[in-house]
Amino acid sequence: MGDPLDKARVPQATVPRLARYLRVLHRLERDGVAKVSSQELAEKLDANAAQIRKDFSYFGEFGVRGVGYEVSFLIAELSRCLGLDHQWNVVICGAGKLGQALARYRGFREEGYELVGVFDSSSHVVGTPIDELSVRPEKELAQFIRENSVHIAVITVPAEAAQGVAEKVIEAGVRGILNFAPVKLAPVDGVFVRQVDLSTELMVVSFYLAQDRD
Amino acid sequence: MGDPLDKARVPQATVPRLARYLRVLHRLERDGVAKVSSQELAEKLDANAAQIRKDFSYFGEFGVRGVGYEVSFLIAELSRCLGLDHQWNVVICGAGKLGQALARYRGFREEGYELVGVFDSSSHVVGTPIDELSVRPEKELAQFIRENSVHIAVITVPAEAAQGVAEKVIEAGVRGILNFAPVKLAPVDGVFVRQVDLSTELMVVSFYLAQDRD
Repeated sequence: MGDPLDKARVPQATVPRLARYLRVLHRLERDGVAKVSSQELAEKLDANAAQIRKDFSYFGEFGVRGVGYEVSFLIAELSRCLGLDHQWNVVICGAGKLGQALARYRGFREEGYELVGVFDSSSHVVGTPIDELSVRPEKELAQFIRENSVHIAVITVPAEAAQGVAEKVIEAGVRGILNFAPVKLAPVDGVFVRQVDLSTELMVVSFYLAQDRD
Repeated sequence: MGDPLDKARVPQATVPRLARYLRVLHRLERDGVAKVSSQELAEKLDANAAQIRKDFSYFGEFGVRGVGYEVSFLIAELSRCLGLDHQWNVVICGAGKLGQALARYRGFREEGYELVGVFDSSSHVVGTPIDELSVRPEKELAQFIRENSVHIAVITVPAEAAQGVAEKVIEAGVRGILNFAPVKLAPVDGVFVRQVDLSTELMVVSFYLAQDRD
């Protein structure tokens, strides 16, 4: 049931919420829960039930009013939608503190994502062991991407190096970039770039603190 | 001009966008630009002009059709709105790789945010120098928060330790938390928690890559 998903219709702000729903649904499934209402999900997520229903509506009408959603079906649909039914080979470019933290971050090794390489241009950092990997020299990056079908590059180099690294990985075949460098990368057709700006997150906090103060 | 801002009306998804607008506006001001249209902003941000106009509409009607927005006025309004006209004292709880990376991240030392302390429970990490600070023992955290008027705590401890640290900082007076630990903190009235989930960002990338594949 449900119409086939037209992803072009899904607003970008919805996507991170889908990931959060999925996480809660996995927890419910582990706890043996088979059905869940949008209200129950809203309570677990500290979110709004109407928003959840709206987000799910992009997947077609698979919730039955008063009965709720089938957990396993929602998990399957959301996983497929988020591309988790596929293996994504990921490299991290830049093995400074942030790159190394991400390389070890358990969330980056969730189902579907395979960290296959970590690269750095500094000879002081090359060879540093990170779990079962060790940091490789950046000059091997392009060839490595081609030989290992790398889909996603996480960029954690300094701002001034980010554009150069992005061009290199795109040229080698990467189609998705998660950019932590505080600089906007030049857009390239067919390449999706998600900019993560950690200081923006602090501003979200101070926005709400300033609200109380006003 | 413009009605006083009612922050309760501003949707949470809008706030990170305001931070991004502000960053671009600062760049325009440095370049000597006095007025900007929503279309020009949209091009610089790779965003949608209608969305920008809608976001700005929460601040009242201060754009004039065909003339655009006054850059310095927008900067002042957005800065005030995001709480950047205030000094926020920030501590980082957890000086592992991620905590140390954030402590050195230039975005975390932007206008308004003052990193005043970094804490860890491990005696191996306590004393590690981070720029002009050095990592302090976690047992001093509560007293430090009280004595230094700390407003915001960034939590970068492991998942299992996060709730305990959150309770400690809230008890000591913190009212804003940026939580990088992959666990939902129990909500507390009057305390704003922003959850940052780095693996969610990867899912946003694979969502769009999977779209091309479908």
